[in-house]
Amino acid sequence: MPKIKVTVWNEFKHELINPKIKKIYPKGMHAVIAAALNKDKGITAKTATLAEPEHGLTEEVLKNTDVLIWWGHMAHGEVKDDIVDRVHKHVLLGMGLVVLHSGHFSKIFKKLMGTSCILTWREAGEKERLWVTHPGHPISEGLPEYFELPHEEMYGEFFDIPYPQALVFVSWFKGGEVFRSGCCYIRGKGKIFYFRPGHETHPTYHDKNIQKVLVNAVKWAKPVVNSAKIPNGQAVKPIEKI
Amino acid sequence: MPKIKVTVWNEFKHELINPKIKKIYPKGMHAVIAAALNKDKGITAKTATLAEPEHGLTEEVLKNTDVLIWWGHMAHGEVKDDIVDRVHKHVLLGMGLVVLHSGHFSKIFKKLMGTSCILTWREAGEKERLWVTHPGHPISEGLPEYFELPHEEMYGEFFDIPYPQALVFVSWFKGGEVFRSGCCYIRGKGKIFYFRPGHETHPTYHDKNIQKVLVNAVKWAKPVVNSAKIPNGQAVKPIEKI
Amino acid sequence: MPKIKVTVWNEFKHELINPKIKKIYPKGMHAVIAAALNKDKGITAKTATLAEPEHGLTEEVLKNTDVLIWWGHMAHGEVKDDIVDRVHKHVLLGMGLVVLHSGHFSKIFKKLMGTSCILTWREAGEKERLWVTHPGHPISEGLPEYFELPHEEMYGEFFDIPYPQALVFVSWFKGGEVFRSGCCYIRGKGKIFYFRPGHETHPTYHDKNIQKVLVNAVKWAKPVVNSAKIPNGQAVKPIEKI
Amino acid sequence: MPKIKVTVWNEFKHELINPKIKKIYPKGMHAVIAAALNKDKGITAKTATLAEPEHGLTEEVLKNTDVLIWWGHMAHGEVKDDIVDRVHKHVLLGMGLVVLHSGHFSKIFKKLMGTSCILTWREAGEKERLWVTHPGHPISEGLPEYFELPHEEMYGEFFDIPYPQALVFVSWFKGGEVFRSGCCYIRGKGKIFYFRPGHETHPTYHDKNIQKVLVNAVKWAKPVVNSAKIPNGQAVKPIEKI
Repeated sequence: MPKIKVTVWNEFKHELINPKIKKIYPKGMHAVIAAALNKDKGITAKTATLAEPEHGLTEEVLKNTDVLIWWGHMAHGEVKDDIVDRVHKHVLLGMGLVVLHSGHFSKIFKKLMGTSCILTWREAGEKERLWVTHPGHPISEGLPEYFELPHEEMYGEFFDIPYPQALVFVSWFKGGEVFRSGCCYIRGKGKIFYFRPGHETHPTYHDKNIQKVLVNAVKWAKPVVNSAKIPNGQAVKPIEKI
Repeated sequence: MPKIKVTVWNEFKHELINPKIKKIYPKGMHAVIAAALNKDKGITAKTATLAEPEHGLTEEVLKNTDVLIWWGHMAHGEVKDDIVDRVHKHVLLGMGLVVLHSGHFSKIFKKLMGTSCILTWREAGEKERLWVTHPGHPISEGLPEYFELPHEEMYGEFFDIPYPQALVFVSWFKGGEVFRSGCCYIRGKGKIFYFRPGHETHPTYHDKNIQKVLVNAVKWAKPVVNSAKIPNGQAVKPIEKI
Repeated sequence: MPKIKVTVWNEFKHELINPKIKKIYPKGMHAVIAAALNKDKGITAKTATLAEPEHGLTEEVLKNTDVLIWWGHMAHGEVKDDIVDRVHKHVLLGMGLVVLHSGHFSKIFKKLMGTSCILTWREAGEKERLWVTHPGHPISEGLPEYFELPHEEMYGEFFDIPYPQALVFVSWFKGGEVFRSGCCYIRGKGKIFYFRPGHETHPTYHDKNIQKVLVNAVKWAKPVVNSAKIPNGQAVKPIEKI
Repeated sequence: MPKIKVTVWNEFKHELINPKIKKIYPKGMHAVIAAALNKDKGITAKTATLAEPEHGLTEEVLKNTDVLIWWGHMAHGEVKDDIVDRVHKHVLLGMGLVVLHSGHFSKIFKKLMGTSCILTWREAGEKERLWVTHPGHPISEGLPEYFELPHEEMYGEFFDIPYPQALVFVSWFKGGEVFRSGCCYIRGKGKIFYFRPGHETHPTYHDKNIQKVLVNAVKWAKPVVNSAKIPNGQAVKPIEKI
């Protein structure tokens, strides 16, 4: 079986500006995530960042991407609209998309969801416990019934997203909030997974369970190939009369 | 109980241009739909059209609209983006939206769905039979197990929409197609119902069963009032530390 | 509009045996719930208990019940199978069912879900906070973005239920658990709402928000009347040849 | 990767009684289905039938089954309740289940769905056309946008099943009916796929597209292994105090 081709996209700003964050992710979060994925025999992962030409997401790159992973936060507004449209088109055509943490407020996620994607939050570095609420789902493969992150930013409900087609994780936060942390969607032929954890000031992507979820998500989100009409945003030609 | 306030929006072009269509809908489709709704004691319906200032959808009008009904086709491109954004905001805040027939390709529906909303079609005036596939849903209230339209435009799968949260109708077409004809969604606090029938060249909105569906859809889509955070597209302020 | 006819069913055992519980619910939990519902102008509620002939759920009673509310715990095994089958049949025919707290392990709920309905639990009288996760749903009408119960039994995930068609509440517990506390289903023409709170040793059904949820749930679960084939467990006669 | 272990169960009655059916399936439908699955390098399929001791579904067999395929029709009543309970337990523990055609009325499917599972039908050997309505789903892998069976028994709506978590196929029938033909569910840790076609008097399981769907369904339904609490129908021990 050919390997699943992943592109890990990161705006890559916090790590360059903030020494504390740089210490956690010296080469950027994308590097740590790609390295974790590349340990799996079935996956080959590359990276792309905001500063690259076309944000590293040329037509050529996306054509050769089975699953795109997206981390963004402070620079959502700098992502060009035509690149967002290009990513959107590829998702509809079947490319998987895994949106991480503050990526909930990225242009591409909001465009795919159709909602505001707002949530509540608190930066207190509190404990997060993620419960598996859908243990038959492939994204829960190999996980304990729950796992913890000792320090994370809190995200709380109401999270303004469409009702997910599957809800794999629900988070508990010490401060009193809950959050739908692992949400599955389809859009066109593409599968989308939103995964909550990953604040830049915590070493979340070094965590073993988190890396397991990312590997599982990539395998789940890989494209399905069939002859269904291509949803490329253009109207399909009318069918001849009966 | 106060009446549900409905605004029936129509681009109102076909009826002015095409004598055959004008004969079916002399004052426009919106007039027929609004009249049908106004027969129900619990509903009060007004109309708005593309040619009016701000397409008849001012902030004032939308604030006083519980459920907006949308019919558009040849003039999707003429609907101004800021009006689309305004309607979008009101849906997230709780306003119901019923999208009819070729409205599947309107800016507002595509923005709310996040997909291309393409489908296949054929103008052969063939028979459509709508089957109730979710008989516990309020939108199926009072309907037979199926009902027919002798002549309609065909819409066929694959219909590029997110998986609906409820699927109330599936259509059968004489020419060999099926279509998910009654689809329910939530976006923010708003409820959305897509309803397939209603080609301008057929007297579909004069049909008794179709009118029954529209009344039911309005009642189902009316706003829910509670204190959940308002999803108005702006980020919510951070919560104070624990 | 005619009133919605509710039957509140309670096994009514704890209240008779345990003086502490009797103090909270002198006439039984069913009496408190029915009284709360009867305050709403659109509802008329009666009660039925395990000790009555046919558990108070005769064919006659069920024929005259729009929505049945179910509370059981220590006596699930005493409920007769033929009464369970009768309730099941009426749900498929359209009667709404609201299952409370430990009713998750009742024969009727397990029969309707098809799963084990297990969960984890802890009797520590800890704080429960219920978050609204679906603010467009009628069951969330009039509620704050979250509400609290100072002392409740904990129920935790994994809760072995089918994926709900709507998830209205998610609970946070002080001890570290989350729970899908407000779950909507359809079975046949009937609507089912599972609502978590209500341990017998706490005055939960005296709580104003809890009572609001029950009123909302009854209104949501009321039967829909249409001509869809009656799913009474018998095969439908074959359709004549084309 | 180890092969997926499949057990194809067939009541194996029609093929022994009816010469016309025997001609289509000389060794039974199960033999044709198992042979088709065994052509795939990732699958190893065995068979089991009603007449075998314990219907060929001993605890040992089920422990070694990743995915069980079920065909039954005239002998649903002969399947012993304790074997049904055993299959049910294994599904909740993670075993996949693919239910075929008239298996919709089997004890195991009705137990897992919680509904009557009734439908309408007609034996006219008419044309069925199956449309892919969820082209991002792995069960649609490699398929055309629709495929046809020249002669099949008709199954029509209303099909009394819970709302599926994914709807992969919708059938069109020449006589005027539609049917939700490919329905996905989870129950416990187990995944369930109901697939409509397969009347005994037609050579449906010899069809290439049908065989492709079965291979895809097996791959989709294979167990997920994780540490979520085992939903074996027994209550879990209470958690110690906080």
